[in-house]
Amino acid sequence: MTSATQRKKIAIVGSGNWGSTIAIHIADKIADLKDEYEQKILMWCKEETLDDGSKLTEVINEQHENIKYLPHERIPDNVIALPDLCESVKDADILIFVIPHQFVKKTCEELKNKVKPSAFALTLIKGFYIDEETNDILLVSQVIKKTLNIPCLSMMGANIAREVAEKVFCEATVGSRDDKHSETVRQIIDGPSFRIRIYPDVEIIEILGGLKNVIAMCAGFADGLKAGFNTRAAVLRLGFREMVNFCRLVEKESTAEIYLESCGIADLIASSLGGRNYNGAKKLAETNKSLKEIEKEDLNGQSLQGPGTAKEVYRFLQGRNLLDQFPMFRDAYLICEQKIRPHCLLDNLTNHPEFQRK
Amino acid sequence: MTSATQRKKIAIVGSGNWGSTIAIHIADKIADLKDEYEQKILMWCKEETLDDGSKLTEVINEQHENIKYLPHERIPDNVIALPDLCESVKDADILIFVIPHQFVKKTCEELKNKVKPSAFALTLIKGFYIDEETNDILLVSQVIKKTLNIPCLSMMGANIAREVAEKVFCEATVGSRDDKHSETVRQIIDGPSFRIRIYPDVEIIEILGGLKNVIAMCAGFADGLKAGFNTRAAVLRLGFREMVNFCRLVEKESTAEIYLESCGIADLIASSLGGRNYNGAKKLAETNKSLKEIEKEDLNGQSLQGPGTAKEVYRFLQGRNLLDQFPMFRDAYLICEQKIRPHCLLDNLTNHPEFQRK
Repeated sequence: MTSATQRKKIAIVGSGNWGSTIAIHIADKIADLKDEYEQKILMWCKEETLDDGSKLTEVINEQHENIKYLPHERIPDNVIALPDLCESVKDADILIFVIPHQFVKKTCEELKNKVKPSAFALTLIKGFYIDEETNDILLVSQVIKKTLNIPCLSMMGANIAREVAEKVFCEATVGSRDDKHSETVRQIIDGPSFRIRIYPDVEIIEILGGLKNVIAMCAGFADGLKAGFNTRAAVLRLGFREMVNFCRLVEKESTAEIYLESCGIADLIASSLGGRNYNGAKKLAETNKSLKEIEKEDLNGQSLQGPGTAKEVYRFLQGRNLLDQFPMFRDAYLICEQKIRPHCLLDNLTNHPEFQRK
Repeated sequence: MTSATQRKKIAIVGSGNWGSTIAIHIADKIADLKDEYEQKILMWCKEETLDDGSKLTEVINEQHENIKYLPHERIPDNVIALPDLCESVKDADILIFVIPHQFVKKTCEELKNKVKPSAFALTLIKGFYIDEETNDILLVSQVIKKTLNIPCLSMMGANIAREVAEKVFCEATVGSRDDKHSETVRQIIDGPSFRIRIYPDVEIIEILGGLKNVIAMCAGFADGLKAGFNTRAAVLRLGFREMVNFCRLVEKESTAEIYLESCGIADLIASSLGGRNYNGAKKLAETNKSLKEIEKEDLNGQSLQGPGTAKEVYRFLQGRNLLDQFPMFRDAYLICEQKIRPHCLLDNLTNHPEFQRK
């Protein structure tokens, strides 16, 4: 039997919808691995005071339910919500990052020199930054790796949190270049209702995870305008093409098959059937309301990721004089900013660079 | 000015939903190309007596509407429906085949030695045969080519006929290995609301066009069982994987990018949003009715293509002992035959060969 000190410890950095879900999933999974994994999972939860005056961490630890971000799903007793960031990760061997991407830099700065040097991270965060000085892309995994000086894997896929919590079958793609870490992730996540496949493409997987929110918005614009099945299919395909071309601007993929993985086409399909960014964009096209208004009306304290990513992508492409090669990314941003109407995106499809004769 | 005898003549072999639509589309397109193309387009129409005793060809030629298969869309006066097959194609330079795939062999036999030797064909037909003796795949383009001794191109994509008729934007993929023929197809089909892209992959494009009907049925089963977005995305992705792997069993593709074309992922997406095969399969999963009953209840005189293709694919894979490598194709067929319940397909996803460790 492994001694207590040798058992690997897991910390979840984040406790929103997806964070709470993955905590539940992992707690279930490691229940059969008592020798290898410390059963107590610490989950960092940015403290919030709820409407009735109670603290979110206390509610999670007492009622075993994240009533704000994942109501009606039981969180196992061994998942402990902590309001103190450094305290939650200080002994962890595996740090799972699942916070909104705009908080990554600040969170990592706070954790600098506070994590075990032998630990590794896994990011589930969709979205990235464009460095303001160099105009280069800066991925969440890179921020974690550089700031904390530990390796960072990524995992993305068609994984709507609520369904994962309900154990509806899904799959995901893990980016990892280290077999030992891959095996750990497989142990704590892979199971009959949640299958993973592993590629040595940490960055491509992350970039796809961010970009798909923008193209899901394009699908939302198309559906909001009742553009029909043919056009909707063209929007998804041409958008997916732009995603692939964008990835290739930034990184060489290990194999073109990565785009056919759950992190690629499947995540795009799922997000375009009814994800948040899709729904917000659809409403924008239907009502001409601003995204700000829509976020206020429909999203309980959370903001859409797609518009922020659209802005970063726009800036990246503009800086390289490539906006014309990516008309859907361009138009998605301009629509979010209410600088053009959603219909422009559809009107521009016919002149997409894909249709220029070579 | 080109003399009348030099103008290219177009014949449409078939006059169903898609045949009537493409006839309208081409008639519109060549109206600006009077020098190059004979304006009269002959459309072979297998004669039918309608409920009121009138003949379908006469109705098309007098009312300029295919009231049975494409009601409410005006067919231009220069599209002439003919009940005589050989008469409709005898002078044609371009033969566009758009009939149900089960009639291809018989139709081609009738046309043997009856077409211009300099003509070429373009097939829009989805589906293929498995040769009963050799158990090899036999494509519609191959039947046309062998029987008529003329080259045959293919065109497939996310093109729901009704929307094409209404000039809703769409795109398609053309398979062609001959630049002159490619250019002709571009002239008569490519336009602002219908964009084409050309690849030297005639056969892959056709195979994808057939296979997607089977995977669209799988999406229908999943939705009929209310399996959720994550599972639906996994069904489409794993099904698409099987499509790609099947193509690779049969042909080497010119480039893996072909799968990201309209004939590949886009056609699958469109067909899985509400095509006939999808709808039939969804109803099967919801009601446990047989496909026969569903075809009778819901399809005005037409039969589903998906179940026939599922059967051929099953036979092909069985003969090669490969059914276990293609569980979704296998299960789709067994569900159509009511040998297993639709839920089995979902239950088997977790053990899909994609998730076997390499």
